[in-house]
Amino acid sequence: MLTIDQLKDAKVEDLERFADLIRKRIIEVVSQNGGHLASNLGVVELTLALYKVFDPRQDVIVWDTSHQCYAHKLLTYRWNEFSTLRKFGGISGFNTTKESPLDRFGAGHAGTAVAAALGIEKGLNLLGQKKNVVVVLGDGALTNGETLESLNQLKSLNSKLKIVLNDNGMSISQNVGALSEAFAKLRTSQAYLTFKNLVKKALSISSLGKNLEEELKRLRESLKQFIQGVDFFEALGLKHIGPVDGHDLRLLVGIFERIRDYDYPVVVHVVTQKGRGYKPAEENCVFFHSSPKFDPESGEPVLKEGWLSYSEVFGETLLRLAQTDEKLFAITAAMPDGTGLRKFSESLPDRFVDLGITEQSCVTFAAGLASVGMRPVVAIYSTFLQRAYDQIVHDVALQDLNVIFAVDRAGLVGEDGPTHHGVFDIALFRTVPNSKIFAPRSLQDLVNVLRSVVEMNVNGTVAIRYPKQTEAGIFEELWNQSKLIDPFQWEIIKEGKDVAVLAVGTMVQNVLSANLNATVVHVRCVKPLDEKTLLRIAETHESIVTVEEGVINGGFGESVLNFLNDRGLVKKVLLMGIEDDFVPHGSREELLKLQKLDPESIRDRVVLFLRKEVGTYGDQVGMRRS
Amino acid sequence: MLTIDQLKDAKVEDLERFADLIRKRIIEVVSQNGGHLASNLGVVELTLALYKVFDPRQDVIVWDTSHQCYAHKLLTYRWNEFSTLRKFGGISGFNTTKESPLDRFGAGHAGTAVAAALGIEKGLNLLGQKKNVVVVLGDGALTNGETLESLNQLKSLNSKLKIVLNDNGMSISQNVGALSEAFAKLRTSQAYLTFKNLVKKALSISSLGKNLEEELKRLRESLKQFIQGVDFFEALGLKHIGPVDGHDLRLLVGIFERIRDYDYPVVVHVVTQKGRGYKPAEENCVFFHSSPKFDPESGEPVLKEGWLSYSEVFGETLLRLAQTDEKLFAITAAMPDGTGLRKFSESLPDRFVDLGITEQSCVTFAAGLASVGMRPVVAIYSTFLQRAYDQIVHDVALQDLNVIFAVDRAGLVGEDGPTHHGVFDIALFRTVPNSKIFAPRSLQDLVNVLRSVVEMNVNGTVAIRYPKQTEAGIFEELWNQSKLIDPFQWEIIKEGKDVAVLAVGTMVQNVLSANLNATVVHVRCVKPLDEKTLLRIAETHESIVTVEEGVINGGFGESVLNFLNDRGLVKKVLLMGIEDDFVPHGSREELLKLQKLDPESIRDRVVLFLRKEVGTYGDQVGMRRS
Repeated sequence: MLTIDQLKDAKVEDLERFADLIRKRIIEVVSQNGGHLASNLGVVELTLALYKVFDPRQDVIVWDTSHQCYAHKLLTYRWNEFSTLRKFGGISGFNTTKESPLDRFGAGHAGTAVAAALGIEKGLNLLGQKKNVVVVLGDGALTNGETLESLNQLKSLNSKLKIVLNDNGMSISQNVGALSEAFAKLRTSQAYLTFKNLVKKALSISSLGKNLEEELKRLRESLKQFIQGVDFFEALGLKHIGPVDGHDLRLLVGIFERIRDYDYPVVVHVVTQKGRGYKPAEENCVFFHSSPKFDPESGEPVLKEGWLSYSEVFGETLLRLAQTDEKLFAITAAMPDGTGLRKFSESLPDRFVDLGITEQSCVTFAAGLASVGMRPVVAIYSTFLQRAYDQIVHDVALQDLNVIFAVDRAGLVGEDGPTHHGVFDIALFRTVPNSKIFAPRSLQDLVNVLRSVVEMNVNGTVAIRYPKQTEAGIFEELWNQSKLIDPFQWEIIKEGKDVAVLAVGTMVQNVLSANLNATVVHVRCVKPLDEKTLLRIAETHESIVTVEEGVINGGFGESVLNFLNDRGLVKKVLLMGIEDDFVPHGSREELLKLQKLDPESIRDRVVLFLRKEVGTYGDQVGMRRS
Repeated sequence: MLTIDQLKDAKVEDLERFADLIRKRIIEVVSQNGGHLASNLGVVELTLALYKVFDPRQDVIVWDTSHQCYAHKLLTYRWNEFSTLRKFGGISGFNTTKESPLDRFGAGHAGTAVAAALGIEKGLNLLGQKKNVVVVLGDGALTNGETLESLNQLKSLNSKLKIVLNDNGMSISQNVGALSEAFAKLRTSQAYLTFKNLVKKALSISSLGKNLEEELKRLRESLKQFIQGVDFFEALGLKHIGPVDGHDLRLLVGIFERIRDYDYPVVVHVVTQKGRGYKPAEENCVFFHSSPKFDPESGEPVLKEGWLSYSEVFGETLLRLAQTDEKLFAITAAMPDGTGLRKFSESLPDRFVDLGITEQSCVTFAAGLASVGMRPVVAIYSTFLQRAYDQIVHDVALQDLNVIFAVDRAGLVGEDGPTHHGVFDIALFRTVPNSKIFAPRSLQDLVNVLRSVVEMNVNGTVAIRYPKQTEAGIFEELWNQSKLIDPFQWEIIKEGKDVAVLAVGTMVQNVLSANLNATVVHVRCVKPLDEKTLLRIAETHESIVTVEEGVINGGFGESVLNFLNDRGLVKKVLLMGIEDDFVPHGSREELLKLQKLDPESIRDRVVLFLRKEVGTYGDQVGMRRS
């Protein structure tokens, strides 16, 4: 067990030993629990050096996105608990103030750290508390608008923020944008290499603890030569140091000590290697960005053979469609792999863009494409698409443009927790005038819906939501068995008595597994409602249940209430969905249970509902426990 | 009447005459109709020169925010119709594709133009259409994250966009940020002045039409000296020309002709003066950014004496509260004047920031402040706050931080139209876990609610929504008469029979004016519902009506349905609000009528509802027309 208390008097050799311990612990736990392996292995030395110089108990360290917080968590008194990483009730994979006061500012979405740190710094100044405020920022977050906005504000706010730019040349996949290109050049430049050797030489003999003062003096001299602006930061009025080797503990400690007392803002550009110290992750850092369980010896992931994710099926289907429809265009925000678009990007590079972590620009870019007659498909995770709500309204819907939103990771995403659950998209899209929301219930259904939307020219603002799930399937078969359907029409899966359960997309399976003697309807289209089917259901059933993997406030259930009320079909409806609170992390199954959306809970709630409200008893609808 | 057709063969003297005509027409119409005077007067020469060189019928010109589109509209065949500017059924104050195909991409929010233009350019390339794509971008939009994201993408997308940076040194009020400071320096630099004189001299004798070739040659030479990067654009891989005098037609035409055939992206930095050519607007360009009617002779606005806006009352109240509560902090996104915070910013400059057009950063900054114990108040117009939905969820609500959102311009804003109506905020905030939404119904009520929220420490994510309206009042009196109330409690304004009308904030007055013999309830708190009052109302009234100035989908009405259904109080409810479509521009009264939310429509609908649904007749509830 290792804590920050051991850092103060540690020498470079000690820190190196600590780095090994931390890496071992991370690999040990992540191989069992899954998690963000590559980025965390990359910042071990950075975290150690930073916490030797800045004390996270006194100073304020804000980690952007905070998927790289494992070393931070281990050092801040969570060494043992770390075994519960991403488990229900266990340690979160991100910083969260509810877990530890040393997680100063929680995050899961990129680009918030500089703005948060500016607010923290301003607040501390007003409260008369002198503290250093440090931001650790990935180069991926530099593509993001909120980061760029905030960087432009540092100078006018008279900030003294210390920004550590952790440049591993990647967001999740390869980075994009002019800044990223400039950094890449810098990383391999002669100046950088010369400087590195110089420092190595200067520091090679003496230990960090001993002749520190003298070393720093020499270091300072060389640094003076090297403190040269990258145009971008200089234009924003920011001093810039680097790039420096992010795995050289001696160097990092020296530089952090140097900047600690600066009374102006500074960016330290640190170059790190994703997956550092673990061969399989060094070699395949895209896969190990956020990986499932794997064998720590071989680095082989524990995957189910023959299982496909909804993302893969989406990507493959879109590629097929685009091969015959030249208007189709795919857009992703830093997720060519996560969204299943890698193959599309390689097969049709002209009709694909990855715009980086820029959800807002992605949506407006799509609107621009649509305005000249293209058919853009924007594939973004539900939780990140929240960033672009205004663009969906203002650029797409208001102008009646034809844009398809592939809303990936809709519903509960499991171990990534509350920052990542996709539970707001139904409610958000419902407010967008004239929007259409589809929710396929299986891999096959996703192929059918996407094909139908594209081939039947379903126009306007179209959202197709699907979960972070894998299911058994072979794409070739799914494609061959696919057919055009009326995507607006609900599907009666099962006819039953008294009660009809309207299940949105992902919830169909759980309702079927609840084994109720009820009519089960697949709500394939959340908006507009399939009024004809709903009317018929309402007329022939005493009571109605709605089930959705999204917030109840403003969700599908309320739209059913609204419709029934409007048509004078006033009847009691049981609304199931996510209550008005955040859902923690854990396995999807555990979380569904917690939200009472697992088959057993659905069954129990329907039975109780019928008993209490309708006077029908459980055994009447065949609800004896099997 | 003037059109683009006249530009092609026009000489500089002609263009100068055209500029006068356009200015005259703009002042004539805006003094009658209100509108964005200052920015439009500033870009007259810019528009003329641009449209002489680039043909908006062939090329694609995208105007960012498009509040500066008046000269564009006049030149693109809307000279006469321009008299209907901002009137119901008339010309929009912004570009909108529904009005003219030459309004290539509509906008009302800042920062979308570069992303849209990139999409358009990509689409045109794929479709094999060779066109120039030009963006006109205000320097205010350069503070915005979406603009910055997109500028970073130009190079990697191999774009050839021509970007005209219209730098008037202002967003709406004074600009903020490091870039803006750098521009300010540049505008007054010696190099710029020398260059200006040089060009003036070179061009002074000959006319634009005649010796153009020769002049351009000379110009090119001087330009070569002057084409120098501003660090910022260079860092993003963009060529940069300027700054150039944005009122010098000869120079502008020369430069636009020069860049027309560049096969790489370029930024032309043009310096313009807001309000140019109209003394009152030159002298008070903040007021004339978006002005009400005024006397064109004197420049005196036509204002009602003794009327106060909700924004002013908000600003004054917050200032009073902040004078005794040192934790209060005010944040605005480029709207110190619009939000009524000017006086606050002058009285308590340490506890105020204007972060520019950066709604996202504003909200995260507030979360940062709150995380160390401050009490930030974020004042942003409802429509612009849509930009920060994700930050409200991810940074504020998820971390249980105490941030007050002053949601200004909530409801229908009138003449600015669909890009500016604040109709989504209730539905959006309803989805935010554990949020609280307040809706005062009068100036006095706003003071009471804000005071109570602050002094009684109403915690968490708190939204207070109020309209773009003025009402008779004197702040001193409002303050003196203010009192602490329970803001969560609804107010029974009037007891009536059979039917209870639940009116949200702004709608109370209209419901009262409808003169119904009904119980009228002021829904001061939209979320959480005042369950006790609602239960009592439901038990003692046969039917319920809800009225809100916001979208029905996901709005207050649905939450009432949801609650009643949950409690088994199943009864018919009439939901009034904004239907699932966009609302055009026009006076607020006209739009309320269009949406059937004016007193007469409310009255008619309630009568019809009671007749049809409940079997109660109008005369029973005292609905004989007065």
